[in-house]
Amino acid sequence: MNNSTGSYVLEKTGFEKDNEELLINETLFHNANGYQGVRGNFEEGYPEGYDTIRGQYINGFYNSYKISTEEWHIGFIQEKHSMVNVFDTQSVKIWIEGEELDLFTGNVTEYRRTLDMKKGITSRSFVWESPAGRKVSVRIERMASFEMLPLFLIRYRICPLNFSGTVKMESVQSGDVYNYFNQKDSRVAGEKRIHMRVKDVEADGTTGILVSETVRSGLEAACAVSHVFSGPVSQTLVCDEKSITDRIEFGAEEGKWSCAEKYSILCDSLRYADVKEEALRLLDLAVEKGSGYWYGKQEEFLEKFWEGCAIEISGDEELNLSLHFSQYGLLQSAGLDGVSNIGAKGLSGEGYEGHYFWDTEMYMLPFFSLTQPEVARKLLGYRYHILDQARENAVKMGHPKGALFPWRTINGKECSYYYPSGGAQYHIIGDITYGIIQYYLITGDWDYIVEQGAEIVMETARIWYDLGNFYKGKFHIHDVTGPDEYTCVVNNNYYTNLTAKHNLIWAAKLYEKLKEKGQLEKLQDKIGITESEITGFKTAAEAMYLPYDEELDINPQDDSFLSKKVWDMASIPEGAGPLMQRNFLYHIYRYQVCKQADTVLAHFLFEDEQELSTIRNSFEYYEKITTHDSSLSRCIFSIIAAKLGEKEKAYQYFDFSSKTDINNSQKNTKDGIHTANMGGTYMAVVYGFLGLRVKEGGFFFRPILPDEWNGIRLDLCLRGSRIEINADRDQCRFSLKKGDPVEIHVYDEVYELSDEITVEMRG
Amino acid sequence: MNNSTGSYVLEKTGFEKDNEELLINETLFHNANGYQGVRGNFEEGYPEGYDTIRGQYINGFYNSYKISTEEWHIGFIQEKHSMVNVFDTQSVKIWIEGEELDLFTGNVTEYRRTLDMKKGITSRSFVWESPAGRKVSVRIERMASFEMLPLFLIRYRICPLNFSGTVKMESVQSGDVYNYFNQKDSRVAGEKRIHMRVKDVEADGTTGILVSETVRSGLEAACAVSHVFSGPVSQTLVCDEKSITDRIEFGAEEGKWSCAEKYSILCDSLRYADVKEEALRLLDLAVEKGSGYWYGKQEEFLEKFWEGCAIEISGDEELNLSLHFSQYGLLQSAGLDGVSNIGAKGLSGEGYEGHYFWDTEMYMLPFFSLTQPEVARKLLGYRYHILDQARENAVKMGHPKGALFPWRTINGKECSYYYPSGGAQYHIIGDITYGIIQYYLITGDWDYIVEQGAEIVMETARIWYDLGNFYKGKFHIHDVTGPDEYTCVVNNNYYTNLTAKHNLIWAAKLYEKLKEKGQLEKLQDKIGITESEITGFKTAAEAMYLPYDEELDINPQDDSFLSKKVWDMASIPEGAGPLMQRNFLYHIYRYQVCKQADTVLAHFLFEDEQELSTIRNSFEYYEKITTHDSSLSRCIFSIIAAKLGEKEKAYQYFDFSSKTDINNSQKNTKDGIHTANMGGTYMAVVYGFLGLRVKEGGFFFRPILPDEWNGIRLDLCLRGSRIEINADRDQCRFSLKKGDPVEIHVYDEVYELSDEITVEMRG
Repeated sequence: MNNSTGSYVLEKTGFEKDNEELLINETLFHNANGYQGVRGNFEEGYPEGYDTIRGQYINGFYNSYKISTEEWHIGFIQEKHSMVNVFDTQSVKIWIEGEELDLFTGNVTEYRRTLDMKKGITSRSFVWESPAGRKVSVRIERMASFEMLPLFLIRYRICPLNFSGTVKMESVQSGDVYNYFNQKDSRVAGEKRIHMRVKDVEADGTTGILVSETVRSGLEAACAVSHVFSGPVSQTLVCDEKSITDRIEFGAEEGKWSCAEKYSILCDSLRYADVKEEALRLLDLAVEKGSGYWYGKQEEFLEKFWEGCAIEISGDEELNLSLHFSQYGLLQSAGLDGVSNIGAKGLSGEGYEGHYFWDTEMYMLPFFSLTQPEVARKLLGYRYHILDQARENAVKMGHPKGALFPWRTINGKECSYYYPSGGAQYHIIGDITYGIIQYYLITGDWDYIVEQGAEIVMETARIWYDLGNFYKGKFHIHDVTGPDEYTCVVNNNYYTNLTAKHNLIWAAKLYEKLKEKGQLEKLQDKIGITESEITGFKTAAEAMYLPYDEELDINPQDDSFLSKKVWDMASIPEGAGPLMQRNFLYHIYRYQVCKQADTVLAHFLFEDEQELSTIRNSFEYYEKITTHDSSLSRCIFSIIAAKLGEKEKAYQYFDFSSKTDINNSQKNTKDGIHTANMGGTYMAVVYGFLGLRVKEGGFFFRPILPDEWNGIRLDLCLRGSRIEINADRDQCRFSLKKGDPVEIHVYDEVYELSDEITVEMRG
Repeated sequence: MNNSTGSYVLEKTGFEKDNEELLINETLFHNANGYQGVRGNFEEGYPEGYDTIRGQYINGFYNSYKISTEEWHIGFIQEKHSMVNVFDTQSVKIWIEGEELDLFTGNVTEYRRTLDMKKGITSRSFVWESPAGRKVSVRIERMASFEMLPLFLIRYRICPLNFSGTVKMESVQSGDVYNYFNQKDSRVAGEKRIHMRVKDVEADGTTGILVSETVRSGLEAACAVSHVFSGPVSQTLVCDEKSITDRIEFGAEEGKWSCAEKYSILCDSLRYADVKEEALRLLDLAVEKGSGYWYGKQEEFLEKFWEGCAIEISGDEELNLSLHFSQYGLLQSAGLDGVSNIGAKGLSGEGYEGHYFWDTEMYMLPFFSLTQPEVARKLLGYRYHILDQARENAVKMGHPKGALFPWRTINGKECSYYYPSGGAQYHIIGDITYGIIQYYLITGDWDYIVEQGAEIVMETARIWYDLGNFYKGKFHIHDVTGPDEYTCVVNNNYYTNLTAKHNLIWAAKLYEKLKEKGQLEKLQDKIGITESEITGFKTAAEAMYLPYDEELDINPQDDSFLSKKVWDMASIPEGAGPLMQRNFLYHIYRYQVCKQADTVLAHFLFEDEQELSTIRNSFEYYEKITTHDSSLSRCIFSIIAAKLGEKEKAYQYFDFSSKTDINNSQKNTKDGIHTANMGGTYMAVVYGFLGLRVKEGGFFFRPILPDEWNGIRLDLCLRGSRIEINADRDQCRFSLKKGDPVEIHVYDEVYELSDEITVEMRG
């Protein structure tokens, strides 16, 4: 049951004996801080036979493994990387007077799980009556610290209600861990693989330390664990080959709370030179400061976070909760150290093996660019970090120069094995460029362009120019896949060609601007970009072929899309799950049926590329044949519906989208949160209901308010200035809260926002 | 060195120390009879470090193995089959007075290997001088019997030239065998796999028997071995876990030949109920009859074979040899028992894992249909045997009814893992239908149509009808791959659409003919074919979209072919090997470059579908961009060149094609002979130089003679009658040798051939 209190606390009550719900809650109540993530597993585990994805991950920390070379051809990948379940430091078992605490026996009452997004902690509390009739009240709080990223803290409190007696605790830290696998679901790994090997187990006094290494990728991680108790205990540490068990015993008194705090520190060799030493040092520091300190820091951090980004919708508390859950999900997932990024499931599960996709730039970056540009800058830094691998990938794929970013990756190497809906998605380079340019237009951060951005934009433009070719005066792009993965490897995908055009145009623009400012030389020395290449970029961009069907006044998704059969949408059974899980992919490819927004997404990103009538017709055309089997779809449909003034539709798409994980709408929240959809939810608010577009010409708003709401309020950070937007049924108020005046356009009128302006709502 | 004598004996002299040549000769001098095949390995082996593909195979006998489930999606195959290296019964080691016979030590003279295609044996003979100076003359003959298919016979003769002494022989039969693998070549298996497990080892007197089973596919095979000697020997059989060694010792006298005959019998559970018992029974029979009997039967069999099919070109003995080698290669490869067929490499090697492709119907069947229709009938029987699996495959691929034959298979299940140049080649069903209809038109065998053919043609027509769709009045077929594997998964591949059209038309034709004759009921009961389906077939066939470019007056290979970049053919280094081994496949797909004949093949098969000018323009267009990286290509270019009167070109393509294996032109003869090319060589003679086309209207000849030849003579079997064709520079004579008169067309004139006609040559 989901009966949360307040829009910053997700709460579920009623003990979730159901395995499916347990798995979902493991995801929803995970703790993460962009560096590490721990799924919300029960400390004491589940009964045998229950399925669980018991995991603890470090962002960007991966093992590699060889994959099948069946019918191998040159350029096919031979190795993949997988985010690793690195340790298990969350295990705590309890015996009360010899009876093992097990919620699946005895009686459970007052059961409650919460995620408090202002405090940054999750909790699980309950009263348990043992089979023998002993009653205890238990409250367990967990936190992944934003202040000290390697710190994961469990506060375990127990209070006997009808007896006094002995409590035994076994708190384990283990290196004997595996990644979850499921042969039947392409969204998680297909086979059991051993990724980690324990190489050092040591108990030093009351501190346990484990060091493990990845089997193949040459990485190392250490976890150091120590406990702090509220009263006297007896304690013994027992090591075996792969784990350390801390056996604790203490007396518990009826009506009195006893508390055990389990500090665990995770350090990996991507960030720390000596993982063991560093883990021990940080553990000492963490314990020394004490949990109160870390709780305080956590709240401080989050106060600042919410201040900058919180959305408040008046008239829909439930929606506010799901919006905040989305924003918090993004925050928990974002790796900001240059070697990591945001996985498709963040750090909440193993879906898509922890890989980074286009999701970052197209769905998640806008939230950060518009609220915390410094975080956006760090996310973009990751792409620069892997630029050399993108150059290698380009050559492998047949391009003599340029950079072709991998479709899915952890460390920069391509990890997509199935090319048609993997590496063939060349649009990722256009997406990255789009993200860079949007970041630049939002923030005005020219230094970033000079240092990193321009190099990426030019290297990716080179790929487009080499990939496509002129035919009968038009520039064509063959055999690529657009965002819609139900139509793969096509010619002249409308979306792709537009991102390519944008990429080519901006490469030329940045070149000219750098030249103008005398800042070109360094880049020229590095990548040897020439005037004639720039001329080529411009010619190709101008000649870019963009499919258009006059009869229907729509943009066909690609050259042959309209000549295919239309999938019988009525034949899809309710709740049957994605088409791709029930049909051979190439069978799907032969139909007009879309997994997600593709042309409709292009209409949002490049709204000036076609007439409004075309956008409307396209929207209506594709709406009929889109299954939204991807969680990246509905938010985009919501944005375009809003643009077209279809408020009710916009609201419905948005409402569904924003609650994707909380409602488990995609039926796979157990594998992790849908981070792109979380970003998309934010986009639907800002680009949809507020109607924001960020163009070279400035910031353009066209606010509308769904009938279901009374008002909406949020902050944006534009060109370094913080502005607050406050809309109700009648008016929309823009106020400058900090920084220099900003020029904005509202309903096509231009305003200099130096204090506050109020505009009448037109929708 | 290749200095063969006569056009029926392939001979190579000079000891081939070179490893590459050894591997090639293993293929060229293999022994096979359609049931089993043994590569021409040295009985005594090679020195350590030498690469060898030591193999002995049974046609259609396979093991299955699970393949990677990396990013698995529904419908992707999870199991493959591989023709198995089943036993090694060819090993014989010799010690002469304690010195091991090893051609890589000492001195070798008078070295000679032969394949005698009239006798049906291979031989290796040499004089070896040991390091200690002992000289022996050795002659080894090997035969896979056409009379008793399980029999493989080695006759080992040795004669001391400068001493008398003791010869020790170790003749081994072993179940400790593996298939060859090479991770870097997609044309052979990628990984070492254990396919066979020995389950029974027994020595009974002087007979050794091994029984092995496949690890996963549930098949069994036995080999029984016994020896016959020309004089007294001492003999001990020693068994270990996986093999039996026959230790033989005898005295050899200077100047006198000693002879040991090794009889080995291979029986498998696909054909024999009790493999062990049957192998022992056949072994007894074989030994009892004696080698002379089997040699005699072999010659008898081949006399009949050559009588029916031999081609004699006057003026080019070298070419005659390669033609006969091709015909013999086809004979050796053809499985005629319904459970087997012709592998892409026959039984001569492990390339393509022993799988059957479209090669059979499109390249090899014509030879048999035109010379030994009873063999053609048996080959077609295999497709009927796997029809139920083809039905299952259809459903898996999204078609509610019909039969979709697998692209590559052994037992009827799809074994192609890489779909774009595998399962996407829907044309295979059109090819099978084409083969059936050609067989029917050549032989007039209506019974076959009633019993099997019509069912296949209608079930495959159903696939086309479901696969394609009407769009703006035309019938389109999306996302399939034509024969050219350098352009995959395209729309409206010209070749595919024409085979589909032919398939649909003939389904309707056969339906109507069956109905007319009152023979429809049984089929209707079985597959429920309806009038309205037939109407649909006809409508689709009539409306079939066939890409045509007016400007160039050619048929584009597919909808988007002409809009792609043209590959820079001049940039391909001489002898660099196939493009696909140096470039990422999807990179190749984005170019106009062809691995093999595609549209040009369509122009041959369906010559009435376009104007001659279009055929000429297409030929010239595609010729410029075809690499002929497939061995199936040049023979077709030869046929069309001949049609266009380009005699010199026709001859050059033909000459190259016919010598593919003898010259190792494709650089992979080591993996086995190119059976399709062997059939293509025959096609180039009959369809190319004789200009034969078999149409509903009859047999149409347009003979031409290359300037390099003085004449050509061959027999054909048309409608059950045997006719001889004899062309020289001036005239072409057609004679009826056996059977009823046949109507033929020569240069568009119609003749009733009841005795002999002579027509003046026009080319």
